[in-house]
Amino acid sequence: MPPLDVALRDIAGQLGGELIGDAGLRIRRIGPLETADPSTIAFLANPRYASQLQTTAAGCVIVAPGMRDAAGARGGAAIVTPDPYHYFARLTQWWAARVRPPPAPGVHPSAVVDPTAEIAPDASIGAFCFVGAGARVGAGTRLAPRVTLGEGCSIGARGIVHGGVVIGADGFGFAPVREDGGLRYEKIEQLGAVRIGDDVEIGANTCIDRGALEDTVIEDGVKLDNLIQIGHNVRIGRHTAMAGCVGIAGSATIGAYCTVGGGAIVLGHLMLADHVHISAASVVMRSIRQPGQYSGVFPIDDNAAWEKNAATLRQLHTLRERIRALEKNERQP
Amino acid sequence: MPPLDVALRDIAGQLGGELIGDAGLRIRRIGPLETADPSTIAFLANPRYASQLQTTAAGCVIVAPGMRDAAGARGGAAIVTPDPYHYFARLTQWWAARVRPPPAPGVHPSAVVDPTAEIAPDASIGAFCFVGAGARVGAGTRLAPRVTLGEGCSIGARGIVHGGVVIGADGFGFAPVREDGGLRYEKIEQLGAVRIGDDVEIGANTCIDRGALEDTVIEDGVKLDNLIQIGHNVRIGRHTAMAGCVGIAGSATIGAYCTVGGGAIVLGHLMLADHVHISAASVVMRSIRQPGQYSGVFPIDDNAAWEKNAATLRQLHTLRERIRALEKNERQP
Amino acid sequence: MPPLDVALRDIAGQLGGELIGDAGLRIRRIGPLETADPSTIAFLANPRYASQLQTTAAGCVIVAPGMRDAAGARGGAAIVTPDPYHYFARLTQWWAARVRPPPAPGVHPSAVVDPTAEIAPDASIGAFCFVGAGARVGAGTRLAPRVTLGEGCSIGARGIVHGGVVIGADGFGFAPVREDGGLRYEKIEQLGAVRIGDDVEIGANTCIDRGALEDTVIEDGVKLDNLIQIGHNVRIGRHTAMAGCVGIAGSATIGAYCTVGGGAIVLGHLMLADHVHISAASVVMRSIRQPGQYSGVFPIDDNAAWEKNAATLRQLHTLRERIRALEKNERQP
Repeated sequence: MPPLDVALRDIAGQLGGELIGDAGLRIRRIGPLETADPSTIAFLANPRYASQLQTTAAGCVIVAPGMRDAAGARGGAAIVTPDPYHYFARLTQWWAARVRPPPAPGVHPSAVVDPTAEIAPDASIGAFCFVGAGARVGAGTRLAPRVTLGEGCSIGARGIVHGGVVIGADGFGFAPVREDGGLRYEKIEQLGAVRIGDDVEIGANTCIDRGALEDTVIEDGVKLDNLIQIGHNVRIGRHTAMAGCVGIAGSATIGAYCTVGGGAIVLGHLMLADHVHISAASVVMRSIRQPGQYSGVFPIDDNAAWEKNAATLRQLHTLRERIRALEKNERQP
Repeated sequence: MPPLDVALRDIAGQLGGELIGDAGLRIRRIGPLETADPSTIAFLANPRYASQLQTTAAGCVIVAPGMRDAAGARGGAAIVTPDPYHYFARLTQWWAARVRPPPAPGVHPSAVVDPTAEIAPDASIGAFCFVGAGARVGAGTRLAPRVTLGEGCSIGARGIVHGGVVIGADGFGFAPVREDGGLRYEKIEQLGAVRIGDDVEIGANTCIDRGALEDTVIEDGVKLDNLIQIGHNVRIGRHTAMAGCVGIAGSATIGAYCTVGGGAIVLGHLMLADHVHISAASVVMRSIRQPGQYSGVFPIDDNAAWEKNAATLRQLHTLRERIRALEKNERQP
Repeated sequence: MPPLDVALRDIAGQLGGELIGDAGLRIRRIGPLETADPSTIAFLANPRYASQLQTTAAGCVIVAPGMRDAAGARGGAAIVTPDPYHYFARLTQWWAARVRPPPAPGVHPSAVVDPTAEIAPDASIGAFCFVGAGARVGAGTRLAPRVTLGEGCSIGARGIVHGGVVIGADGFGFAPVREDGGLRYEKIEQLGAVRIGDDVEIGANTCIDRGALEDTVIEDGVKLDNLIQIGHNVRIGRHTAMAGCVGIAGSATIGAYCTVGGGAIVLGHLMLADHVHISAASVVMRSIRQPGQYSGVFPIDDNAAWEKNAATLRQLHTLRERIRALEKNERQP
């Protein structure tokens, strides 16, 4: 973490909360309770870890009102606030603005931006970015170095697009045409674009394809991690978050407030309702219309045990028939 | 979709087919039957959806000869053609050429192209592309912005390579060498290249590694979606298509006319025959010598049900033994 | 393979080993035993393939001392060395240095390198690389074209970073904040960096995120293939190797001398001991504290068989109950 040295009162003055203890305490680090030292500010979000309050060496702890007494009892300083985790997030933002200011607004001289693109004056376009004809970048949005925003694609305000992202490559669309030997593929030109809302963050090397006829749509507040594939015509509802290596196939519609764990796959043309949560590495093969947590992963085991169970799994249907036969014989002795 | 306004006769005049109805009808959009309006041209490829012919508001529908009467009965215009889906694909190409002409031939001034590379005069090399020594790009092939075509690698005619693709990075090859504590890895320099045929499309951020001693080979007409990994020495047969996030490990040989669903993995040194189809997210762990569809995915379920079934799966082999014991006792009472 | 024409004595003179037979033999190719010709040098690492010694047309074979007599008996030349595979790796390096010299040291004129970055004089920074403020690149390390090394991130000596790699994008960290309708995500600024040791190779389009508060750490000798996602705060022990498409979620700690097969996923906050080997496409959902090989993949099958077995799997827990009931009835007739 880049160094900073501030008085606790500066933090509380800017971010709020009830400050208990030495307002002049020097804070030089944000850290976890376990490895904190007297110049560290730490937070306690989960009451389950309340016992750490007694053992941490943190100079200051951020706690919820219910922990005020426990935090006071330990001696050091505290900030009491309704949502300590949210406070922590805001603290990292405040800290980052001091130690690592964001890139200056404007277009890096090495970037290639089509003259018909519309870039908000306070947006930032990094080195080696390519922004196509008619593309739009909203207020305060940052494209890291080496981002592609294709022709006609748009992203709203306060977005963050990390390095290597490709927005607006062609969707994977072909008409199979019979020829001698089998099917060859005739390209379906992808005439839609990608439309991304406000407050969206897109991780490194993630790809969002343009729609075939209409637009691929990413709604406000969506957070995508690295190396995610979003197929053409997909729609992702607001405030949905996806972890790394997820693949969403073409024309899938993902609801709002969903989460998709790392490496999960959603097949094409499916619908996920709002508030659906897909566990990591699970494969969605049919639409899910009820909120809830869904999983489907082969449990890992030592290799020898896996081999035996996997081999048996290939006969599982037969095993069921054998159980049925046993049950039938039992009933008709 | 970028706007266009054409008479139906212009479409049929260029693309063929039997035009029924008002040849002067203005077409402003290609769209699906369900959301079509009177200025939309739509297509019906699957007779199962024939009932939509009666309800669509499309100004013109593209249909197969067997649907001529049904299309005529609805009143609006129609184009009759043997393969409506193929016609639709060609229509998108015709449309795209009018609303979004492809990049002009030539090398973008920002690209870095080795002087020994051979670029066909009508090929197009986008911004920030890197083309290494001795690489070759065939006639009419387009490299989108931010593509790497490594030293000695080649791509044939009419190819499309989307943003962020890396062709010709080193394959993952190391000789394990014993040292104190375990194995360390000594690099095996990758002396082969990548050889790509004609009419190949490669999706954004896909990687194709150079071969260790010989070349990695992608045959004519192969279509690769985004974020695919093709290991060294792989050979992919003509007109094979792979969806996003697929991984093909080193030295695998994939036949012609295969399809590999999104997120599937093919282990190294395996062979897939022609016309093999791998379902999404399936893992190929042995060679497949018979054409057909192959699958292997843990079925997704609500999390509680999955947990119970997954836990039981770890004892499946034992369950089989218990069924055997029951069967044996039944026979020998 | 780019052409070269050398006498066998030049190879043995440089790389050592006991040379048997014609030291003046011209070698023009490194190749496998099966497809070798009289100008090919091949190697035999696995005694299981010893019978190939009798049939290969290779001009020279590299063998271990135990195979000296068999190699001599075939007539052609041989190099005897304790570890033929290691010798082969060094031979490819020697060959590559002659046919395809590495890029010259220095920063490519098109690269954007922050003036506060420290680049070793003999490091090589390729075209369109972006190196952020305070980043460090060690001696002899090569960044291929189109690599991002973010602010404050470092890589040691003799590293190789392939095209499209993004080191130091923000980790995926957000504080969920309740609002009408559900949770939205407040960004946690990622204040750590990425610290990479010596002799590390990183495959094309792989991403390594910066830590939230502390650094993400990749130790010496780690080898990462293409399209791998390394989350924030991950630590990977020395000489661990990971194949393509792997995802390591945030705060996971991977031991030394591990291997992770292609497409495998390791969930966040887990710990893998040293010498743990994860099979391809397996999902690690709990910490693994014992060395060994671990697997968890649904076995692929023809689609009809898979459908039946997968459907039954969703009732597996119930099947176990039915087996229990049968066993109970058997005991209490």
